[in-house]
Order: sequence, then structure tokens, then C-alpha cells
Amino acid sequence: MAEHAVLNNPRSAHFERIRQLRHQVWQANMDLERHHLVTFTWGNVSAIDRESGLVVIKPSGVAYSELSAENMVVVDLEGNVVEGSLKPSSDTATHLVLYRAYPEIGGVVHTHSSHATSWAQAGKPIPALGTTHADYFYGDIPCTRALSNEEIKDDYEYNTGKVIVETIGDNEATAIPGIIVKEHGPFSWGKDAAQAVHNAVVMEVVADMALQTLQINSNVDHINQALLDKHYLRKHGANAYYGQSSSNKK
Amino acid sequence: MAEHAVLNNPRSAHFERIRQLRHQVWQANMDLERHHLVTFTWGNVSAIDRESGLVVIKPSGVAYSELSAENMVVVDLEGNVVEGSLKPSSDTATHLVLYRAYPEIGGVVHTHSSHATSWAQAGKPIPALGTTHADYFYGDIPCTRALSNEEIKDDYEYNTGKVIVETIGDNEATAIPGIIVKEHGPFSWGKDAAQAVHNAVVMEVVADMALQTLQINSNVDHINQALLDKHYLRKHGANAYYGQSSSNKK
Amino acid sequence: MAEHAVLNNPRSAHFERIRQLRHQVWQANMDLERHHLVTFTWGNVSAIDRESGLVVIKPSGVAYSELSAENMVVVDLEGNVVEGSLKPSSDTATHLVLYRAYPEIGGVVHTHSSHATSWAQAGKPIPALGTTHADYFYGDIPCTRALSNEEIKDDYEYNTGKVIVETIGDNEATAIPGIIVKEHGPFSWGKDAAQAVHNAVVMEVVADMALQTLQINSNVDHINQALLDKHYLRKHGANAYYGQSSSNKK
Amino acid sequence: MAEHAVLNNPRSAHFERIRQLRHQVWQANMDLERHHLVTFTWGNVSAIDRESGLVVIKPSGVAYSELSAENMVVVDLEGNVVEGSLKPSSDTATHLVLYRAYPEIGGVVHTHSSHATSWAQAGKPIPALGTTHADYFYGDIPCTRALSNEEIKDDYEYNTGKVIVETIGDNEATAIPGIIVKEHGPFSWGKDAAQAVHNAVVMEVVADMALQTLQINSNVDHINQALLDKHYLRKHGANAYYGQSSSNKK
Repeated sequence: MAEHAVLNNPRSAHFERIRQLRHQVWQANMDLERHHLVTFTWGNVSAIDRESGLVVIKPSGVAYSELSAENMVVVDLEGNVVEGSLKPSSDTATHLVLYRAYPEIGGVVHTHSSHATSWAQAGKPIPALGTTHADYFYGDIPCTRALSNEEIKDDYEYNTGKVIVETIGDNEATAIPGIIVKEHGPFSWGKDAAQAVHNAVVMEVVADMALQTLQINSNVDHINQALLDKHYLRKHGANAYYGQSSSNKK
Repeated sequence: MAEHAVLNNPRSAHFERIRQLRHQVWQANMDLERHHLVTFTWGNVSAIDRESGLVVIKPSGVAYSELSAENMVVVDLEGNVVEGSLKPSSDTATHLVLYRAYPEIGGVVHTHSSHATSWAQAGKPIPALGTTHADYFYGDIPCTRALSNEEIKDDYEYNTGKVIVETIGDNEATAIPGIIVKEHGPFSWGKDAAQAVHNAVVMEVVADMALQTLQINSNVDHINQALLDKHYLRKHGANAYYGQSSSNKK
Repeated sequence: MAEHAVLNNPRSAHFERIRQLRHQVWQANMDLERHHLVTFTWGNVSAIDRESGLVVIKPSGVAYSELSAENMVVVDLEGNVVEGSLKPSSDTATHLVLYRAYPEIGGVVHTHSSHATSWAQAGKPIPALGTTHADYFYGDIPCTRALSNEEIKDDYEYNTGKVIVETIGDNEATAIPGIIVKEHGPFSWGKDAAQAVHNAVVMEVVADMALQTLQINSNVDHINQALLDKHYLRKHGANAYYGQSSSNKK
Repeated sequence: MAEHAVLNNPRSAHFERIRQLRHQVWQANMDLERHHLVTFTWGNVSAIDRESGLVVIKPSGVAYSELSAENMVVVDLEGNVVEGSLKPSSDTATHLVLYRAYPEIGGVVHTHSSHATSWAQAGKPIPALGTTHADYFYGDIPCTRALSNEEIKDDYEYNTGKVIVETIGDNEATAIPGIIVKEHGPFSWGKDAAQAVHNAVVMEVVADMALQTLQINSNVDHINQALLDKHYLRKHGANAYYGQSSSNKK
């Protein structure tokens, strides 16, 4: 285990922030189950403390009923375990690529939720068809290309992160806070772990409704751009008016 | 906050009616969640006191677990907040258009329930295919036209109400107590908040079954007019015989 | 209310049988809800005491949470209420036609359960596609013809029963203990109320799977006749070997 | 009942192992219900004690609420009941064929779970379309041929086992720990009863997602072989790195 000075002093601000982050990440992992996004252990949430560069993440393959704030694993941005006796999620390398690429995000989620994963298996973006989608995602939720055999064989989880970043390209990550990885499943993110989970729920709901919509009308158009703008912007940005404050509501 | 004399005297009949309405509207909002019609805060119920012209509505973006009769918001028919420290639902203007257009309705509901919203995204009316539908809706549940860019940009929520009224046209609003707004989702109404929620549940159920029906038989006909008449009228109107009284059962 | 001597003597065997039947019918109605077959009050169960010819049935339009053994309604085979202060289910006349036509049945159920009702709306029999179906229904679950306008206008519920009997024809009712009424929904029956509910659950499950099966393979064949025979007969009839006795297991 | 010496001595290791196996098999049967894989009594789990050759299995047609470790039935590999007053599951002969054919398996499950059974009714293998599938099944989940009329008429449950073995052929049973029997439903297995249930859950989830995937994209390809290898092997075999040890995690 790598040494990390900030965790040695219980009176430091770092120490307290990481303690709180452990609790938030544990809570967010439990929320995945509460929202029916996971079967068995097929999901993981992490969050980052930007000041210290430390990431708190779910341990690998541990049942949700056995998770606690205490058994969350702390890693640095290179993936070294700095605190915790369990192995971190096997998807840790993917999370870390996202934290390094997007300074504005504070939490990352991965699940195999049924509807979003079906779109991933189909290799199709989840189209923006209505205001439910537009309230959270400012356009289609993209689907990555397939990884090459080389990308799969070596550093697979790292390359999964890279293909996500490649797909998002020059777009701001927070405008479309989720993606589906081809033949695999959804990843989402947000300003913190709770918002990343919130976006994972939204992806699952809109993935479900998008398929139903196509079954009712296979020639359906994308949502009108003006309506996409209206709904996205009434919840996000400087002129937001949804919720009880002018800030971006999760 | 606008002044409103009726709320200043705890001994007035108005005061007591509003107190009861707050409780009914809170209960109706909770029922939306109990009937699995809402994800997060994506739904709202209001009700009107016709004598004072005051409307009680859910606050914007507040979690269902934090709702109470006390934090419901009271607005007048022009949308001025007359009681309550929270902002009213962002859809308030839509509700108010409906109350002004239809004196016979006492409660309004909006949700993003999965099946009804999928029909809205598909831009198709929910066809009347069986007696379950006919027991509550006297014909297809219409889908509005899309709003124009101008209608979206300014007074969007008000214009959403206007396009609903435009679609219902000269028909009696209570014969088909619900509608789907294109690319958005369902609205329903009733004599009070509870009946509006009841109709929202029915819309979701018949939307689900209508899609399944079309998947089994893509050439299915609309329900026979005589059967539509029979079922609608055995529950509604002067000769109703369903339930324990001759009045319209919700 | 019609007089009925058997109910006047608390010490009579009739009295006790009806008391038990009330409890069974109440329990069976509650089981409809427990098995997620009903929304609101959209379902009803009855059972008959063959010796006295009395039928116990759910009252019309009463919420499941308010049902009790005591508020079940007792009617004779002509539909006269002989005990109970509430109106019997509006579908009572349909139940009575079935009891009169089939002396071997002791309980009847009607619901608007989602999948079976979708087949009814589609106007198609639920095809026998696998052993789950064959364990309970010895062939396709038929769909009635549509009722004529005359049959709908007068004595609608009675005529619903008649078209069920017309559809079953010379077949034994217990070999296929359920049917779907076109544009309406499922009816099922059994030796008692509990078995009728059991068959209602099976209809809903096989209706769901039949649609999925057709979506996977639109050219699917009916189940092999030998397999239909095997599964139906291992649960029913003289050589049954499923369960803990040789009798027909529900 | 056949005599079986190992069960007569409460101090023997055999006695204790069978006692524990009864508990595991009871727990695994209850887990079927907890994971929503069964309606009524339509599922059964067994496990084998390889040293004594004794198999513990659910009794036939008993409600889940009445199951206990005590009323599980113990049979030998020829199907003779060696302990227990109830009849074993009517599918016992199928389980025994699998235990005899595959020495590496310790638990077997059969259900009529909705999605997997729909694929069985459609007569199609469940295609490997994504990593969720690849984490547990190293390729398509095969569908058996239909049984012949002769195989159905005599020794039906035994022949069901034989056609499973015929379909798996020379492949290792643990690489694809489940199958669907045409017109019938899924069987799965594992190193013990708990793992067999785990695989039954996975089959149901991937069967659901495979249909959705085809509905989104009817021309979808099978998962890339390199990705199938990667996911299967990161959870199974000598180089597994998922979970908290290097052993095969269930």
C-alpha cells in the first residue's frame, strides 16, 4: 500500500473530508441498489477529493449488504491503494481516466442496468426524444465504438476510460453526463457521487422510454431543438428556475 | 408575496377549506409515488378552492420524503404566491390555464410516468382499445401538437396549458380527463386531486396495455362504439350503476 | 332483499358453509391484489355453495383495503341479494351464467390484469407455447367473439357470460379453465375461489411469456401435442404425479 | 424407502454434511423466490454430496412458505428416497442425469422464469451480446432440440436430462453453466446450490436484455470474441482478478 501523509493525521481537514467522502460513496452505492440499478455486485460508485487527489471507491465483488463506509477503498489518481484492506473495484482504472480528463466531475457510476445496457449491447446512442431526457442530458447519450482486440487484451479497464473520453471529444462532459460503452453498459458522472447516481437513474429511465417510443412510432423524430434547450436550461446554468434555488439542482 | 385576506383569519371557512386542501394535495402527491408514477420529483398535483380562487400545489423540486401539508404552496389564479415560503412547481402556469378554462375541474396532475410519456414522445394519441380505457376515458386520449419555437421560448409553461386547451377544443374536459403533451408527458384532471391522480394511474395502465396490444396485433381496431358507450356510461352520468351509489365513482 | 331460510339458523350446516365461503372469497379477492393482478377495484372473485345454490361475491367498487369477510355479498343463482348491505359486483350476472352452465366449477375470477387484457384487446387467443401453459391449460386460451350492439345494450353482463359459454362450446370447462373476452379482459375459474385465482395468475404469466416468445420468434409453432398431453396430465387426472398426492393440485 | 447407512449415525461426518446440505438447499430454494424467479411452486434446487452420492432436493408442489431444511428430500443417484416423508420434485430425474454426467457440478436449478422461458418457448439460444453475459457464460446459452414423442411419453424427466447432456456435448459444463430446454424453460448449475441459483438469476437478466437488444437493433452482432474472453476470464480461472481473491467468485 502506498503511503499518503494526509491520512495519518485525524485532526487534518483532509482526514475529515475523506471520512465524509467514504460515507457519501457508501451511501451512493447503496442508492444504486435502492433504485434497482444493480443485480448482485454489478455496479460501483466512486468520488474524488480534488484537493488531495484521492478517490474513494467500492471494493470489488463485495455484496451490497456487506458494504460500509469503512470498507470503501481509497486510491490515488494512479490507482495505488492508499487506504483499505480490500481490492478496489475492477473498474477503478476506468473511473480514474474520467477524473483525470474532466476536472469538473466529482463522482462516477458504472452499472449494468437493464435498459441502458440493452442500448449498449445494441451499439446505439440513446436518442433524446422528450423532455425527461432533456431535463438532464443536452442531446443523445452517445455510444462508444467497440474496443479493438489490443485495447481489450491489455489495460482493458484503462482503455474503456480512454474510449469514453475519445467519444465525448471536445464537448463539455457535464452537458451530457453519461455514456454507454458498446457491448458493455452505462457510465455516468456528476459533481459528486449522489449526482452521478441520479444521472444513472435518469439514463435507465430514458433508455426504457426510448425503446417503448420506437415501438409505438418507429419513425419518431428527435426532440425539437428549442424544447431541448428550454428543458435543459431551465434546470441547468445561470438562468435555471427549477427547484428552490438558482443553482443546478441534482 | 401577494396579500390574501381569506388566509388571515383562522376562524374563517376559507381558512379551514385551504387547510384541508393542503392536506388533500399533499396526500395526492404522495399517492403519485405510491402508484409508482414518479421518479425523483418528476410529478406534481394541485387542487383548487373555487370559492376563493386559490390553488394549492406542490413546491418545485422537493423530494417526496420531505413533502408535507405545511410546505404545499398556495397561489392565486394569476400565479401569485399567497402563502408558503417555497417556490411553487415550475409547471404551475400550466395547471392554472386548465383551472381557468374548465370550471368543472378541481384537481390537476402532471407526471413523467413511463408508458404514457412514451406515447407522448411518439406523438401518438393513446387509442381506446378496450373496456379498461372505456371505464374512464370516453375515446382516445389525445396528443397535442408540438409547440412552436416561439411558444417554447417565452411563457413555455403557460403555452403548454394553452395547447392542451386548444386540443380539447369544444369537447367536455371531464369526458376525457387527460391528455399527453407531445415530446413531454401526461396531464390529467378530475373533480378533485384524488380523482386526478386516479386518472393518471389509469392513463399509465392503458398506455402500457395499448402498446402490448399493438405488438400482439398491429391491425387492431378501436373499441366498438357501443362497448365504449356501455362502459363509460355504466360508471359515469345519470344512469351509472357501478359502485355503491349512483354518483360518478372515482 | 330476497328471503333465504338457510341463513336464518346459525346452527345449520348451511349457515356455517356460507360463513366459511365468505372467508374464502374475501381471501381470494385479497390474493388478487397480492399477486398484482388488480389496479384499484378492477377485479372480483366469487364462489358458490352448490348445495344451497348461493354465491358469495365481492361488493362493487369497494377498495381492497376495505374488504372483509363480512362485507362480501351473498346472492342466489338468479342474482337476488340474499345477504349483505352492499351492491354485488357489477359483473355478478357474468359469474352466475358460468355457475349455471358448468356444475363442476366452484369459483370464478375476473380481472383486468395487464398482459391477459392486452391479448383480449388484440382479439387473439393466448397460444399454448410451452410447458408452463400446458401445466394448467390443455390448449390455447380462447378469445370470444365481439358482442353485438344488441348484446351490449341490454343485459350486457349476462351476455358476456353467454358468449363465454358459446366459445367454450362442447369442451369441458375445467380442461381450459379460463378465457379472454374480446376488447375486455380475462375470466378464469376452478373448483373453488382459490383455484380460480391460481388460474388467473397463470393466465397473466403465460400471456406475458407468449408475447415475448412471439417477439423473439414470430414463426414459433404451438407446443408439440405429446408435450401438451404430458404436462397437463402429469398435474391433472387419474395418473397425475406432480405434488404430494394423486389428486389434482392447484 | 431405501436404507442408507450414512444417515443412521448422528456423529458421522456424512450425517453432518447432509444436515448442512439440507440447509443450503432450503436457503437456495428460498433465494429463487427472493430473486423473483418463481411463481407458486414452479422452481426447484438440489445439491449433491459427492462423497456419499446423496442428493438433497425440494419436495414436489410444496409452497415456498412451507419449505424448511427439514422437509427437503434426500435421494440417491438412482432416485431412491433415502430420507424424507415427502415426494421429491417431479424434476428429480433430470437433476440426477446432470449430476451423473458432470462430476464437477454440485448444485442444479430449474425454474420457469419469465424471460428465459420465453427464449425456450421460441426455441432459440440466448445470444451472448455483452459483458454481463460474458461475465458468467462463455458463449451463447444453448437451446436443446425438441424431445421426440417417445422421449416425452416414457421417462420424460430422465430424457429431459439426456437432451441437455446431448446438447452440451463435449463442452465443459461449467463454461456455460445453464441451458434452455425447448418449449419448457431454463436449467442452470454450479459448484453448489448457491452458485446454481446465481447462474439462474444471470440467465433471466441476460434473457431480458437480449430481447430488448434485438428490439433496438435487429441486426446486432454477437459480442466480440476478445471481449468475451476478457470478461469470462477476468472472473473465472487461474488469472481471474475480479473480487477479493484469485478464486472463481460466484
